[in-house]
This record gives sequence, structure tokens and C-alpha cells, in this order.
Amino acid sequence: MRAVDIIEKKRNGLELTDEEIKWIIDNYTNDSIPDYQMSALLMAIYFQGMNKHEAATMTKAMVESGDQIDLSDIEGIKVDKHSTGGVGDTTTIILAPLVASVGAPIAKMSGRGLGHTGGTLDKLEAIPGFHIELTSDEFIDAVNKHKIAVIGQTGNLTPADKRIYALRDVTGTVNSIPLIASSIMSKKIAAGSDAIVLDVKVGSGAFMKTVEDANRLGQTMVEIGEKVGRRTMVVVSDMSQPLGRAIGNALEVKEAIETLRGEGPEDLTELVLTLGSQMVVLGGKAETLDEARSLLEEAIQSGKALDKLKEFLTTQGGDANVVDDPSLLAQAKYQIELPAQRSGKISEMQAEKIGIASMLLGAGRASKEDEIDMAVGIVLNKKIGDDVKEGESILTIHSNREDVSDVVELLQENITIADEASEPKLILNTITK
Amino acid sequence: MRAVDIIEKKRNGLELTDEEIKWIIDNYTNDSIPDYQMSALLMAIYFQGMNKHEAATMTKAMVESGDQIDLSDIEGIKVDKHSTGGVGDTTTIILAPLVASVGAPIAKMSGRGLGHTGGTLDKLEAIPGFHIELTSDEFIDAVNKHKIAVIGQTGNLTPADKRIYALRDVTGTVNSIPLIASSIMSKKIAAGSDAIVLDVKVGSGAFMKTVEDANRLGQTMVEIGEKVGRRTMVVVSDMSQPLGRAIGNALEVKEAIETLRGEGPEDLTELVLTLGSQMVVLGGKAETLDEARSLLEEAIQSGKALDKLKEFLTTQGGDANVVDDPSLLAQAKYQIELPAQRSGKISEMQAEKIGIASMLLGAGRASKEDEIDMAVGIVLNKKIGDDVKEGESILTIHSNREDVSDVVELLQENITIADEASEPKLILNTITK
Repeated sequence: MRAVDIIEKKRNGLELTDEEIKWIIDNYTNDSIPDYQMSALLMAIYFQGMNKHEAATMTKAMVESGDQIDLSDIEGIKVDKHSTGGVGDTTTIILAPLVASVGAPIAKMSGRGLGHTGGTLDKLEAIPGFHIELTSDEFIDAVNKHKIAVIGQTGNLTPADKRIYALRDVTGTVNSIPLIASSIMSKKIAAGSDAIVLDVKVGSGAFMKTVEDANRLGQTMVEIGEKVGRRTMVVVSDMSQPLGRAIGNALEVKEAIETLRGEGPEDLTELVLTLGSQMVVLGGKAETLDEARSLLEEAIQSGKALDKLKEFLTTQGGDANVVDDPSLLAQAKYQIELPAQRSGKISEMQAEKIGIASMLLGAGRASKEDEIDMAVGIVLNKKIGDDVKEGESILTIHSNREDVSDVVELLQENITIADEASEPKLILNTITK
Repeated sequence: MRAVDIIEKKRNGLELTDEEIKWIIDNYTNDSIPDYQMSALLMAIYFQGMNKHEAATMTKAMVESGDQIDLSDIEGIKVDKHSTGGVGDTTTIILAPLVASVGAPIAKMSGRGLGHTGGTLDKLEAIPGFHIELTSDEFIDAVNKHKIAVIGQTGNLTPADKRIYALRDVTGTVNSIPLIASSIMSKKIAAGSDAIVLDVKVGSGAFMKTVEDANRLGQTMVEIGEKVGRRTMVVVSDMSQPLGRAIGNALEVKEAIETLRGEGPEDLTELVLTLGSQMVVLGGKAETLDEARSLLEEAIQSGKALDKLKEFLTTQGGDANVVDDPSLLAQAKYQIELPAQRSGKISEMQAEKIGIASMLLGAGRASKEDEIDMAVGIVLNKKIGDDVKEGESILTIHSNREDVSDVVELLQENITIADEASEPKLILNTITK
């Protein structure tokens, strides 16, 4: 086989065979195919697409390019959850104990954040003492005993995806649905779960800018999952504004605790219950989504979910007292209000820019080496559709530096007040096979 | 500027600015932009195209990436001619002395052949003593004195084109009209002529497979020429079968001599007169194509053209006696006839495959280091549309090896005899501004 023939075949809109896709991925991973041929192929895929079968074959080839986690020693159906990235997305810290509390095992491998989206690991490390360095045996034991454990990424998972992703980033080939789908699915499959729930974000702060694209991405991932034998469900949710009210590590942990207590923001609670219901059904602990939702609501009301959070934190060395006393979490020196410049309704809150404002305060990393300040961030007092009076606080800036004029400027540019505005719909679609 | 932004802009179908195109070409030439970004951009151009202005800007940037030949010391309007590559294409050796004989200066830089298409330099070196090593001053003096000189490629012309061309070859981005047009035009412009005549070949043996594509390529090159101030004319001609009857170096020189004497094959003569008329008009030696054609016909009939060939050969050290006695050219040891396997009409003669058969005999190079055998090649006794009887010779193989079974097999596979067939039209279009 020759790479140029495969590039021309895809360029001409033809379907690649399983052998051709596997040959390309294998030989790119082992350095036999140069970057310049792979980038030409990626651009041809950008224009000509890939059908579901090709995307599934590419996903499998990327999974097989590296290590695969073996979770077979964990009892029950392991369900993983992934979000395509958002701002103020605290869902994992809420979902993991909530779903575990109704008996579905959560064996979660999580990443750190880069740029304006926070990583679950960073948020968890806002809890004093909490650590994610478990051996493989400790991890499996913890899940079998407590139904929940979270570790950092381990092993050489999907090296083909890592290289292709880096190449796409600099060659204008990020926004291709089959490429995004196979990248996400390969990582989830290599991480070893039996079933997968995906939260596809739509809006200014997300990869997918339209609901149509998000639906196509979701459909593609569900079909890839089906073809590789991992049941997959998708929720398409709005990311035109930050999710919940807190952005920043300790602030989001506090919000997660409140949500597990049944006192969280409405939108965050709704998304958690929607995603959690899918996880419970896929995990075999309920027959229908409605039944699953009732179980989860009951776990919140009874305090079972909050107890599971404490158990989870204690097992991984964290101070479970934060659950009852969130003031034990890091606190920022300054609380600065952002006043509304006119009366009206909030009509825009650019999620991505608010995430960047939080990063500027120190809550996120601009580059891999940056240290995170756990205490800082932003708490929204108003969201899109809310009434606001001139001078009233739209949000509170939690900062360890006194001068936040740069942050204030960025926020003011990206929050709009109009005469009329309505709350955006949160759950835009759910996709199952 | 960032390469990825320019790639995405073109990917999205937008027009690149002059600054963006120049920045890309300059930085690719000086190694600041890696191959993998250039190949992604080339694939985006393959799909989204470039308008005439972008193609002209790219052409100029490629010209400016290296040296440019200065022909301003040569009197008159210098007209260059280029063919997009064909089999048995002897036109330059005929055109140069023919056009020079009516007073238009020919300052020609020529290349060597690779693969199944022969290079003009290789063909000229079939003439005993002929050499192309002239200094820049000798070259200019020769053209001023004799109106004709041919040298090999000199200087570091269009390095950007050389690198982009090599990259296109391995990334499935060869067949893009703006990329082909800017590649050809940049080389011609850097070579210093004032005006350009292009012979765009169409058919199985050529880059362009359809007349529509050839017309688009021709139109694009004419407009690039206009935008950079070099008048350009295009002839679109058939390459479904080899041009003329001879394929091979000494054999083509002999055919060129016969054509200049007025005894050449009809198709080759017609193409030479068509291209030559454009050169004479562009060179300012006639007002109309008809007037130019009459001048050229007269030069052939009077012997002036043949005299100019002798003068040209002598000036560059060649034995002009070959003109009156072609037996002084290298002769192959064996002449082997290829008999028709049935009676009928010749319906197919795959130009590219017949070129490869000639290369297998030693007339061309499979790789740069190969030595050429000047004597060998193929002479067609029949062409498409001709009647043939079973056993009658279709062509004569001139070989220095006795066993030519491989060549015979390749030829038989690529020459078809049918009940009915007609001669293909040679001149398919002419394009001028």
C-alpha cells in the first residue's frame, strides 16, 4: 500500500477499506508515514467525510495503537462519562458519587485542564488531602468496595490519537465530525469502560457551534459505540453560558456539594439528573430513564449521595469535613462585585470568555507548567434571562490579587444586558441507539 | 500571521490576500512553515480552488523565491514555449529554428526528461558534438547574432515551486488547476521571456484528461500571464496518441529535420505551425496568426528554416551535416516490426504506455541517474484511424538488445484494432486574452 493512493482515494470521495485505515494508523504511529501525508489525508477527510463504518474502524485502530485498560476485575457494568468541554462544568464531581450511590460502579480516569476549561482532577485536588495516585490494584479494590474511584491518566493510551490530535490542531482539521468522534471514542474505549455517556456541548464556548452539528457528532459516536460493542448514549446540552454558577476549582467543589444536597443551581441539577439517568440505565441499575431519575432524586433527598461523596473523599485521602463545612476549602482574599451598567435582562454571557477571565485570575492554566490557584474564580449571581438593575451585582470575582481591572474589562465586554432576553434551553437532545 | 489561520481561511472557501500568499510561500521556502502545514493548505486549495488573482499572486511569490534570468540584453521580444508534457513531442527542436528563421529571437532554457516524456536537451544531445554549456554572455551573444540558442537550466530558479511540486507528488494534490498553472507559469516567468506560448496536452498520456480541464488550465495561465505582464497564448492539443511518428532521441531529431524540410508527419507539422504562429505574433513579427502562418510556411518551403537549424547546431558545436545526412545520427542494431494481430482500423494507441515502452528500450530515464541510449525508440507506421491488415507492421522497434518481448507485450496491450475508428482532432482549442 502507498499513503498517496489512500489520500487520493479519500480525496475522490471513496470509502477506505478496513485494511487501508488500519495500515495508515499503524504506520503513522510507528513513524513510517510522515506528518505531511497524514495532514493531507486529514484535510481530505475534512472535505469528504467518513461514513460510520470508517469512523468505527479508525477508532478501533487508534485504540489498538497503544495500551488498553483492563477493568474486568471490577464487578458490574462500568459506565464512563465524558463531556466535550465546557466552562464551569462541575458535573463529574457530582455524577460520580450520585451514580455510585445507586450501585453503578464508577471507575473514572480523569484529566487535568488546559486553557479555559477546568479539569476534574484539578477540581478534586481543591479538597485538602485528596490524591489520585492509586496503583491499579488499589483502584480496582476501591471501586469494588465503594463503587467509586478516580485516578489520573495511566499507561500509553491511544498514542495515534495524541499525535493526530496535535497535528489537527495546527493544520485546520480540528472541526471534522468523524475525526472528533473517533478521537473521543478511542480514548473512552481504551480507558476500559463497558458503556459510555457523552455530554456534547453546543454554543459559543464549545467545539460544536450548532445543534445540527452536535446531533451529527452525537449520532456518529453512538454508532461507533454500537459497532465496537460499547453501548453509548448522548446528551446534547447548551454551552452558550457557563453551566451552574461557579467557575473555579474550590468554588465548583462547593457547588458540587450543594447540588448533591439538593440545593444546587437548577441547570446544573437538571443536566446531572439527565446524564446520571443514562449512566444508571447503561449500568443496569434501572430499566428506564424515568426509573433511573427517580432513584437519583431519592439518593439526593435521602442524603445517600452526599454520604457516598464523603466515603469517596475519605478513601482517596481527602478531608470529608469539607462536605459539611465548605469554609475548609481555600478562600480567596478579595471578593469583588461586577455591577450592571444598566437595567434590563442579561442577554449574553460568553462562556468561553468568562472561562478565560477565571483563568486570568489563576483558576486555570495557560500552559502545562502553570500552577493553579484553587481559591479563585467567578460566581455568577445572574444568568441569561435574569432581570438586573443598574448597579446590581452580576457576578462576584474571587481573587487573590487586588487589581482585577483586566478581568473586569474582559467580563464587561462579554456580558450583555438588553431590554428582552429569555433563558436558553439547557437539554437540546438525547441520542440513543 | 499564523499558517493555521491561513489554512482555515482557504478551507472555508475564502480568498487569501496577497500578503497571506506571499507570507506562506516565503516562509515555506525558508523552512519556517513545515511540510505538514503546506500539504494541508495544498489539499484545501485542491478542494476550494484559487481565483485568478490568487493564482497570479502565488505565481509571483514563487518567481521571487529564487533567481530570475535577465534577458534584457537580447534585442526584440523574447517568446518562450512550453508543453505540459507528451510522448514523441519533438516540437521545440522544430519550432526554435523555424520561428528564429522569421526573425523572432529564441532564448530557450530547456530541461532533461524523466520517465516516459523525453527532454529537449536529451534529444539535442543526440546530435554529435552539440553542447548546451554556454556562459550567460555566450548565450546572449548567440541569440543576438543568430536569433537562437538553447541552454540547460541555470541558477536557483523557483525553489518554492520545486519544493511544493515534490510535496504535491506525495500528498495527492497534483491535479489542481491553480497549482498546476502557477507551477508552470512561475518557471516560465523566472526564465525571463517577455511572452509565453503554452501547449496544453489532453488525453490518456497527459495531466489533463478532459478538454474542459485543459481549457480551464489554459484560461488560468493566460490570465496569470496578463496579471504579471507577460502576454500568454495557449493551444490545447490532443495527446491520446503520440505526436508525429518517432519516439526516441535520434529518431525524433531525424523527424524534426524532415518536418523543417516540409516532409514531416501531418499532425506534427500542423501543431508546429499553430504554436509557431502564436510565437511569431507575440514576438511582433506578424500582426495576425494567418500572416504568421504564411511566414512560417514560406520559411519551410524556401529552406530558410532548415538553414537556421544548421546555423544553430554549428554555433553550439553540433555536426550540421546530420541535417543533410541523418544516417550520421546514432543507429540501433535491431529493427523489429510489430505486426497487426487482426485486420481493421487502429482505434487506440495509449501515448503514455508507448512512451514507457520506448523508455524500456533505453530512450528515457526511469531514475535521474540513468544513461540514455540515443539510438533506440519506436517509429509508428500506423496511427489512430489508419487501416491495417493482419500481419502488417504497426510500428518499428529500434533496439540495441535482441530480445524485446517485454516491450512487444506492453505495446500489444496498449494498441487496439477495431472495425471502425477515426482520426482524433489534433488542435482542440486556442486561448488568447
